[in-house]
Amino acid sequence: MKFSIERAVLVKAVSQAQSVVERRNTIPILANVLIEATPEGVSFRATDLDTEVVDSAIAQVERPGATTVSAVMLNEIARKLPDGALVQLALDAATGRLSVQAGRSSFSLATMPRDDFPAMASSKYSANFKAPATVLRRLFDKSKFAISTEETRYYLNGVYMHVSKSEDGPVLRCVATDGHRLARIDAPLPVGAEDMPGVIVPRKTVGELRKLLDDDEAEIAVSVSETKVRFATPTLTLTSKVIDGTFPDYSRVIPQGNTRKLEVDAADFARAVDRVATVSSERSRAVKLSLDADRLVLSVNAPDAGAAEEELIVAYADEPLEIGFNAKYLQEIASQVDRDNAVFLFNGSGDAALIREGSDLSAVYVVMPMRV
Amino acid sequence: MKFSIERAVLVKAVSQAQSVVERRNTIPILANVLIEATPEGVSFRATDLDTEVVDSAIAQVERPGATTVSAVMLNEIARKLPDGALVQLALDAATGRLSVQAGRSSFSLATMPRDDFPAMASSKYSANFKAPATVLRRLFDKSKFAISTEETRYYLNGVYMHVSKSEDGPVLRCVATDGHRLARIDAPLPVGAEDMPGVIVPRKTVGELRKLLDDDEAEIAVSVSETKVRFATPTLTLTSKVIDGTFPDYSRVIPQGNTRKLEVDAADFARAVDRVATVSSERSRAVKLSLDADRLVLSVNAPDAGAAEEELIVAYADEPLEIGFNAKYLQEIASQVDRDNAVFLFNGSGDAALIREGSDLSAVYVVMPMRV
Repeated sequence: MKFSIERAVLVKAVSQAQSVVERRNTIPILANVLIEATPEGVSFRATDLDTEVVDSAIAQVERPGATTVSAVMLNEIARKLPDGALVQLALDAATGRLSVQAGRSSFSLATMPRDDFPAMASSKYSANFKAPATVLRRLFDKSKFAISTEETRYYLNGVYMHVSKSEDGPVLRCVATDGHRLARIDAPLPVGAEDMPGVIVPRKTVGELRKLLDDDEAEIAVSVSETKVRFATPTLTLTSKVIDGTFPDYSRVIPQGNTRKLEVDAADFARAVDRVATVSSERSRAVKLSLDADRLVLSVNAPDAGAAEEELIVAYADEPLEIGFNAKYLQEIASQVDRDNAVFLFNGSGDAALIREGSDLSAVYVVMPMRV
Repeated sequence: MKFSIERAVLVKAVSQAQSVVERRNTIPILANVLIEATPEGVSFRATDLDTEVVDSAIAQVERPGATTVSAVMLNEIARKLPDGALVQLALDAATGRLSVQAGRSSFSLATMPRDDFPAMASSKYSANFKAPATVLRRLFDKSKFAISTEETRYYLNGVYMHVSKSEDGPVLRCVATDGHRLARIDAPLPVGAEDMPGVIVPRKTVGELRKLLDDDEAEIAVSVSETKVRFATPTLTLTSKVIDGTFPDYSRVIPQGNTRKLEVDAADFARAVDRVATVSSERSRAVKLSLDADRLVLSVNAPDAGAAEEELIVAYADEPLEIGFNAKYLQEIASQVDRDNAVFLFNGSGDAALIREGSDLSAVYVVMPMRV
């Protein structure tokens, strides 16, 4: 194997691939990136056995071949080489070392054989569709904050992507919840996604996926089977196992009969919650909302440290209500609300609240109350 | 106590004061900042018993007085208040709470009595002098990297500031060393510093001091006694105990007879060291320098991971030499060298190397070799 590649191209390809590599590996080869050179170009592949990233890059291939080297080390070397350098990578069959040369710098890196690299078994996907990067970005960005970190409820450790129906017709829907709050985000159903099985996309994959979605113009090819999901751009392919579990029936959690309506500027609200929460201890950041005619008072009472109160002018025309929430949950939801006016729908002070953007039902949030 | 203060002024004063507060305190009042309001203005005082910061600020004082509140909390509240807000702080004698009000936000914070706040005993200073912020910044910035972190050699856990003599006359000198490398930085001796006792300024104080030195125009008033050192601007005073120990006789460590001279671009050198060190493990980052006529080869050999080599064009006219160093030490020293050409003076491969900037002797570094 021997090829030359521009330093910037190498940096991009390797850094994207190596990010799935776990820092602590009990299986040494999982710390490596598989480099494959063919007459068409080179690819960099990395995996943690659950997620695999393959990044293709343009290179002048002199001798096709393949090998694996430490992903972290190759990434660091590429980053540290001077801007604009042309990098030559060549496998020395005799020593089994990969030589990396650029200008007056030369490296000779230990390799492991390509055959030891665990390839992810190929899958037959039951649904294949395309979606704009902007659409997928919205679906995952607005839902991922609610992913549970509780390992015992492993089926909540991801975003549930599935087909559903809204009032406006069939939708591609992403839902995440940790039992305390829930996000439900819809997008029009792409052609070809109709028969997609519902899958729970793991937290780590959601994070890696984000890197594919940066380009506003990109169309992402999505493939889904019962066990795997794949997202691909022309140069980058992310394949991931999905969580083997059943996502709970979230529809029961979404309150239907909440009628007490509060409208508030989402940004003002988030800042006020942040301020009053300052006096509470890290663990129990409970904020009390006291609602009266067009008036919202946020308050926190932490006996040891002190108390805080802030008043906001809002639109509220219902009966007075007092209800408590975890400050962090309120802030996270408020920061997802794109428009100026967040709409809160309450029932009683012991009932879950529903939050949405104006009358738009394509992004709906639920948060459970806290006793204050 | 009651006064109004601009939010920006409050943020600056409290953030500077609270930075000396240790995050984990066994003595509760050390987590607090002492606020003192007099007809002339207010001051914010914080301490960890070894270091004390007092920050004066302009405020409209309605009722003089004093109290103490959580430094971290007051700092967070001030930061989170809207830009441009006027903040009113008032102590409620009946409840013992400090009320903080700005716009529609109000806080009521637990206090502890001012009398419980440990005031640092005032000292009689045996030397008082003034020095420009730029001069002190250079003295401490260029030496502090060499401070030892080894707690058993506590007398190396700071910068030794003292009066000495250079070829150009008396100097104010800062020296730091951890036994592996040493930095010795000189500045012309300020008037009034002649009788200053040598003091070891602790690492933490050096860090806090940095904040006083940001303003290029500032003149810093320095006061030194056998046990304490004080740095002051018109608004900010930093007082610190000095380390109670004897700094070793560093002059023995500085090689006098090194004659093999290498001149190299400091930035190129630092980058090349960084690159070749990539292949070595974190612990033993040994870099070998191989010198020959106008040629320097940097190399690293890490049996498990691989090898790296880089050649630099340098000025070197002496006999060939091979010598090894810790990569991190070389990089840290190279990054202190301001001018393009770093001058290395070597003796044998087992002897310490001396590094300086051109022929300037006001900043001298020493680094011990490593067997490679």
